[in-house]
Amino acid sequence: MKPSIPKGTRDFSPIEVANRSYIMNAIKMAFETFGFQPIETPSFENSATLMGKYGEEGDRLIFKILNSGDYLAKAEEIVLSKKDSLKLTSQISEKALRYDLTVPFARYVVQHQNEITFPFKRYQIQPVWRADRPQRGRFREFVQCDADVVGSPSLWQEVDFIQLYDTVFTKLGLVGTLIKINNRKILSGIAEVIGAQDKLIDFTVALDKLDKIGKEGVVTEMLSKGITNEAIEKVQPLFDFSGSNSEKLSSLHSMLETSEEGIKGVEELRFVIDTIAQLGLETASLEVDVTLARGLNYYTGAIFEVAAPKSVKMGSIGGGGRYDDLTGIFGLKEVSGVGVSFGLDRIYLVLEELGLFKTVDLPTPKVIFLNFDATSDIMKMKALKELRKQGVKSELYPDLGTSNKQQKRQWKYVASREIAFVVSEISNDMYTLKNMGTGEQEACDLRALIEKLK
Amino acid sequence: MKPSIPKGTRDFSPIEVANRSYIMNAIKMAFETFGFQPIETPSFENSATLMGKYGEEGDRLIFKILNSGDYLAKAEEIVLSKKDSLKLTSQISEKALRYDLTVPFARYVVQHQNEITFPFKRYQIQPVWRADRPQRGRFREFVQCDADVVGSPSLWQEVDFIQLYDTVFTKLGLVGTLIKINNRKILSGIAEVIGAQDKLIDFTVALDKLDKIGKEGVVTEMLSKGITNEAIEKVQPLFDFSGSNSEKLSSLHSMLETSEEGIKGVEELRFVIDTIAQLGLETASLEVDVTLARGLNYYTGAIFEVAAPKSVKMGSIGGGGRYDDLTGIFGLKEVSGVGVSFGLDRIYLVLEELGLFKTVDLPTPKVIFLNFDATSDIMKMKALKELRKQGVKSELYPDLGTSNKQQKRQWKYVASREIAFVVSEISNDMYTLKNMGTGEQEACDLRALIEKLK
Repeated sequence: MKPSIPKGTRDFSPIEVANRSYIMNAIKMAFETFGFQPIETPSFENSATLMGKYGEEGDRLIFKILNSGDYLAKAEEIVLSKKDSLKLTSQISEKALRYDLTVPFARYVVQHQNEITFPFKRYQIQPVWRADRPQRGRFREFVQCDADVVGSPSLWQEVDFIQLYDTVFTKLGLVGTLIKINNRKILSGIAEVIGAQDKLIDFTVALDKLDKIGKEGVVTEMLSKGITNEAIEKVQPLFDFSGSNSEKLSSLHSMLETSEEGIKGVEELRFVIDTIAQLGLETASLEVDVTLARGLNYYTGAIFEVAAPKSVKMGSIGGGGRYDDLTGIFGLKEVSGVGVSFGLDRIYLVLEELGLFKTVDLPTPKVIFLNFDATSDIMKMKALKELRKQGVKSELYPDLGTSNKQQKRQWKYVASREIAFVVSEISNDMYTLKNMGTGEQEACDLRALIEKLK
Repeated sequence: MKPSIPKGTRDFSPIEVANRSYIMNAIKMAFETFGFQPIETPSFENSATLMGKYGEEGDRLIFKILNSGDYLAKAEEIVLSKKDSLKLTSQISEKALRYDLTVPFARYVVQHQNEITFPFKRYQIQPVWRADRPQRGRFREFVQCDADVVGSPSLWQEVDFIQLYDTVFTKLGLVGTLIKINNRKILSGIAEVIGAQDKLIDFTVALDKLDKIGKEGVVTEMLSKGITNEAIEKVQPLFDFSGSNSEKLSSLHSMLETSEEGIKGVEELRFVIDTIAQLGLETASLEVDVTLARGLNYYTGAIFEVAAPKSVKMGSIGGGGRYDDLTGIFGLKEVSGVGVSFGLDRIYLVLEELGLFKTVDLPTPKVIFLNFDATSDIMKMKALKELRKQGVKSELYPDLGTSNKQQKRQWKYVASREIAFVVSEISNDMYTLKNMGTGEQEACDLRALIEKLK
């Protein structure tokens, strides 16, 4: 029996855990600096809380937990005999693993609305699970780092979130991220102008391919999806959509002037863009991208997505937006929310590829007491006790080694764990301390030993 | 639809997350100070990794994950028609949620044995899930904090772990914990002496009731379980098992002198007890308890359990022991391991009951900019940007409030979040800063503002 783990999941070694903590701490510190407070929700929710919130595809990708005990007792015979998996699921499973942090957060807000002061700024850093096909940057268990505000329609939040992205990526040394921004109302305006609400996704998907297949290719695809020539004519400016953000905004403004909602979207976007222009960003840039449509189902205002620096091939490393009525699904109406998410696992891959982890410290002991001679054991343990009290990471090699071979193994252990100092010998109450970097060696008493190491 | 969460799971509010982090950090720091390195394993494992490792009861309590897609396709018709839940499980579920951290760790060690330097000292702080009946201190999702060493039979580890418990509980201000210690070999010795290997658990369970039901009650229970009068006679000393640890050890030594294994257990225990006596403990005490038998199935040497201070009613808040062949189940033979676990959720309840959380800081902003006047918005945002760069937790009240009522709401928000400083007004480039504790107010320029707050 060769042990293994499920597809799409990972073990993390000490160095990987340290690197992941480094990223999470940077994000956590930034969240708190921006005034967000942490909450946590259970790993599994009642299925009713999650099902139907992420579309049909989402429902399929949610991991369901089998009921305990004699779970078939309540199952209908007809469903069993027909082997109807879809129908049986709700009869034998009442719980499911968290699919994202947004829906559980909405559930939390509604459930705890009487304990919460609004606007409520919360962050949440927890794993989520999706039965997706694993590939580079896509796992079945991965960590999301979300910050959201509910209870305020103010566009200052959008400004804050863009600065938050810039702050985190700057802190991680990740220069050159691209924050793409769009507004759902602009997309609605486009749909209005082209007279085809239901073709909006086909439209943005086709438009997104402009770089790859050129204007002609995009038009062909749009026509094939049933978008009329006349409609395409009306949004001509989108086919030469370049220049500065303010040029793009002007172009959108004239294109959408017949759509009240479209114009509102342009104005919202303009406010955010102009404010960020005045405040400046450290390392990120901000770019209007009208093809950005992520999860159209719940965004109602701003839509964000962050791309890694161009030199790295990786899907988005963050995203988010405004949803005017997320808590409505749980019965609390008209509470506007806006939030962003950081994809820890992808950020990890990007930092690794760019060699940006070099500064992370492994939690390795600073000093080890080798074990060549049992007579001084108590002296070693007493020294260890003092060192640890002072917070010095330290340990005793546990097994006594009297032969050459055994002692070699202890030195090998020191090297492999990259331990900086070694106490190899103790005599007359003096500890022989060796600096493994320089090779220097000196004898010192307990007090001097602690002074040197703390 | 009233939102709720599954039985035995919990939401954690900001203050609860902060308190939990405080405990986890204390444990993590102690683990690292003692030379342990972190690893993490997936939340779910292949069922084959977990099933059969925790006894029949354990198998029942493991949460199973339903396969994705048309999971019934592979199910046998006969099993479905018989509604045989037990048999069907393995046909429709291949993965299960982690039940503890020890078995996944054993799996990790075997799977990664070529990347690991032994002795391998790892710690792991992650949630585990059990479909247990929820009650006070028992949840279906809870966090375990484990430290283990594999690859060394040295008793110094046992000494280290007792000191580790003492260090953590001292740091948390939890005075008066009781570390109970036993040794599996002593239990085997007792079984040998009473001539009833198979009655060992009945014996320890009965003996454990000595305080409650008295000697006579215990003897009656033992007899009812088929333990002979003659056997009971041989272990008379256990019925007056009091006095110091060394008195207990002497008594065990004479009682078990016919059992080689029993004597070995006494000697091991004596080494640990004597060494700890020489080193001293800060706030915990160490006590030999021969009724301690926790999970007999894999412990082979020392057995630990920690009880909260007597004033608090709570099950054990930690436990562990030595297992000589844990990795054997995954094919790596003769690797000795020893480890302990801290029960985060119970430690939380104990600290809460004793009022020991008072020092924990909530991640709340230090300063907020109120929003009474839109004209100075950019000045506020610029100040915020600088403050945050200096790491000062700070935010803007997002919604403009011009009416009395709206402004009152902003002050209420300040009070409810316990924010220490407020900038309520800006004029002529001067910020009016109010100290909410003293009520003092002063006008300062941006530089002075940052100096005061950072």
